[in-house]
Amino acid sequence: MEPVAIGVDIGGTKMVAAVVAADGGFPERLRRPSPRLDAGALVDAVVDVARELDPGGELPVGVGIAGIIEGDGVVRYGPNIGIENFPFGARLIEATGRHVVIGNDANVAMWGEFRVGAARDADDAVMFTLGTGVGGGVVTAGRLVLGRHGYAGELGHVVVEQGGRPCPCGSFGCLEAYASGTAIEFRARRRLLDLSIDSSLRGVQPLTGKDVTTAAVEGDDFARDVLAEAGTWLGVGAASVVNALDPAVVVVGGGAASEGAPYILPATRRMLGERIMGRGLREPPAVVEAELGDDAGLIGAALLAAA
Amino acid sequence: MEPVAIGVDIGGTKMVAAVVAADGGFPERLRRPSPRLDAGALVDAVVDVARELDPGGELPVGVGIAGIIEGDGVVRYGPNIGIENFPFGARLIEATGRHVVIGNDANVAMWGEFRVGAARDADDAVMFTLGTGVGGGVVTAGRLVLGRHGYAGELGHVVVEQGGRPCPCGSFGCLEAYASGTAIEFRARRRLLDLSIDSSLRGVQPLTGKDVTTAAVEGDDFARDVLAEAGTWLGVGAASVVNALDPAVVVVGGGAASEGAPYILPATRRMLGERIMGRGLREPPAVVEAELGDDAGLIGAALLAAA
Repeated sequence: MEPVAIGVDIGGTKMVAAVVAADGGFPERLRRPSPRLDAGALVDAVVDVARELDPGGELPVGVGIAGIIEGDGVVRYGPNIGIENFPFGARLIEATGRHVVIGNDANVAMWGEFRVGAARDADDAVMFTLGTGVGGGVVTAGRLVLGRHGYAGELGHVVVEQGGRPCPCGSFGCLEAYASGTAIEFRARRRLLDLSIDSSLRGVQPLTGKDVTTAAVEGDDFARDVLAEAGTWLGVGAASVVNALDPAVVVVGGGAASEGAPYILPATRRMLGERIMGRGLREPPAVVEAELGDDAGLIGAALLAAA
Repeated sequence: MEPVAIGVDIGGTKMVAAVVAADGGFPERLRRPSPRLDAGALVDAVVDVARELDPGGELPVGVGIAGIIEGDGVVRYGPNIGIENFPFGARLIEATGRHVVIGNDANVAMWGEFRVGAARDADDAVMFTLGTGVGGGVVTAGRLVLGRHGYAGELGHVVVEQGGRPCPCGSFGCLEAYASGTAIEFRARRRLLDLSIDSSLRGVQPLTGKDVTTAAVEGDDFARDVLAEAGTWLGVGAASVVNALDPAVVVVGGGAASEGAPYILPATRRMLGERIMGRGLREPPAVVEAELGDDAGLIGAALLAAA
C-alpha cells in the first residue's frame, strides 16, 4: 500500500520511526536514541530519520511526544526529554521543508486507534493510556479534539475524588493517581502493609506495577484485586467522560493495561455501567483493549500528518 | 436582520417560540402552555406556532427540550413533559414539511451562547446550566458535540466524588448533586440543622434554592457560603471537563446561577485554577456568566436549525 507519511514516536530514551501506509502498515521500524535536554539535537535526529526513511521525498512527518504540546507544534513542556517552550514543529518544517504535525503521545495514539485500531468503526471515541501516568485522547464526529491550546485529552486529570490522592500534576484526586502503573505499584505496596494479606508479591523488592501485573497473570488473587481496584476507578473517570461526550467506544491502552487488561477492564465496565446517564436507554459504550500496542503513537502521528 | 429559523423552547409547563435572526435577535416571543403526556398534542402545538410565526413560509424549526434526545430527533426520555421514545423530529418534519432539528435544552443553550452569547469569541467552549438539575453542552472546533446517540454534554453527571451524594440519575457523586438549585436548597437545609448558624434563612419554610440566592444578594453570609460551596464543586467538575477538552470559555447559566453568580463563580474560578493541568503554562479558561438568560434555548435551537 502507498506510504502516506513518516511517523515518529519520541520517548524518554528512544525514538521509533517508520514510513506508514494509509492502513497503518509499515515495512520496518527505525530505532534511535532520543537526544535529551537538547532541542537542536532532537530536531537533527528527526531530520535524519526522515531523510533515511524517505530520501529526497516529500512525505509529511507526524511526531508524537509526551508532554504539553500546543496546536501549532510548540512543545510547551516535554518532561521525558527535558525540553520546554520549544517551537519544535516550526523548526522541523524549516529544516525539512515537509508538512509537519506534532502531537501529544496519547492524542496521536488515540488517532491511530481511531483510524486503524480498536475504534476504527466509531465516529466518537475516547482513549485512556495507562502507563507511568494516565494519558488520553478524544475523537468527536471523526475529529481529534485539540481544544484551544492543543491541551485537550488529558483524561488522566479528570477528577475522580475531590480531595483524594495527590497527583504528580500537583492536584488531588485525579484519575492518574488511581489507575496509572505508578498508582498500581503504590497501592500494592500500601496494601501489603497489612500483614494478613497473603500474596506472592510479599517481599518483592522493589515492587513495581509490572510485578503486580505478572502476579495477577500467574493467579495471585491480591494482585488481581489491586488491578480491579484501578479498573473501578478507571470506570469512574470513564463515566464522567462518557457522560460529557457519549463516545461509542472507550479504548484502554498503555503498558499498564496490556497484560493486566483481563483484571482491569471487567471492573471498569461494571462501574461505567452503573454510572452513565441513560442507563437502560442505551448500551454503555464498549470498553475495549487498544489494538496497536506500542505502535499506536507512531501510526497515529503519521496518519494525523497525512490527514 | 433576515430571519433564519423558528426557535421553540419546550419547558415543563410552557413553550416559548420566536422567529430568530442570524444575530440571535427576535421581534417577539409567542407563549403557549406545553401539552403534557400527549405527544400528538405536542406536535400539533409546535405546528401551530410555526404556522403562526411564519405563515406559509419555509423557515426551519429548531426545538429545545429537556431530556435525553437522540441525534435523529427521537425524544428517548422527556421527563418534564412526560413523553418517551417518541420520534418527535420525524413527526414534525412530516407535519410541517420544514427542516427540523430537536436538541437537548442545555445543548441548544450552549449553541446559542456559542453563536451569539458569552462564548461567541471562542472556538471551543463548554456550558454548565444550573437549574433544578445541572445540564451542559460542549462545542469543540466550532461544532456542537452530540456523540454517538446525541447524549453528549451531560456535564451535570461528571463525577466529582466517587461514592458521594446520591444523584437523581441513580448514581452517586455527580456534579448535579452538589451544584444544582436543588442541591443548594438541600445543602442549606442540612447545614441549618446546626443551630449555632446565624442566618436570615432560619425558619423560612419551605426553604428553596431561590431563597438562598435572595438571602445571599441581601448580604447573608451563610447563604453566600452555601453558594460558594456549590461553586467550589462546580470548579471540580469544570476542571475535569477543562482537562478533557481545553475550552477557551466555561459558560455558567441557568436560573440557579443568574443572581447567585457573584457568590458562585469566584469559588469556581479558584478551584478550577488549582485543578487544571498545565497550571502556570496557560491562563485557565474564562469562567463567565451566560448572556442570553432564558432565551438561550430558543435562540440556540433556531440557530442550530439554521446552521
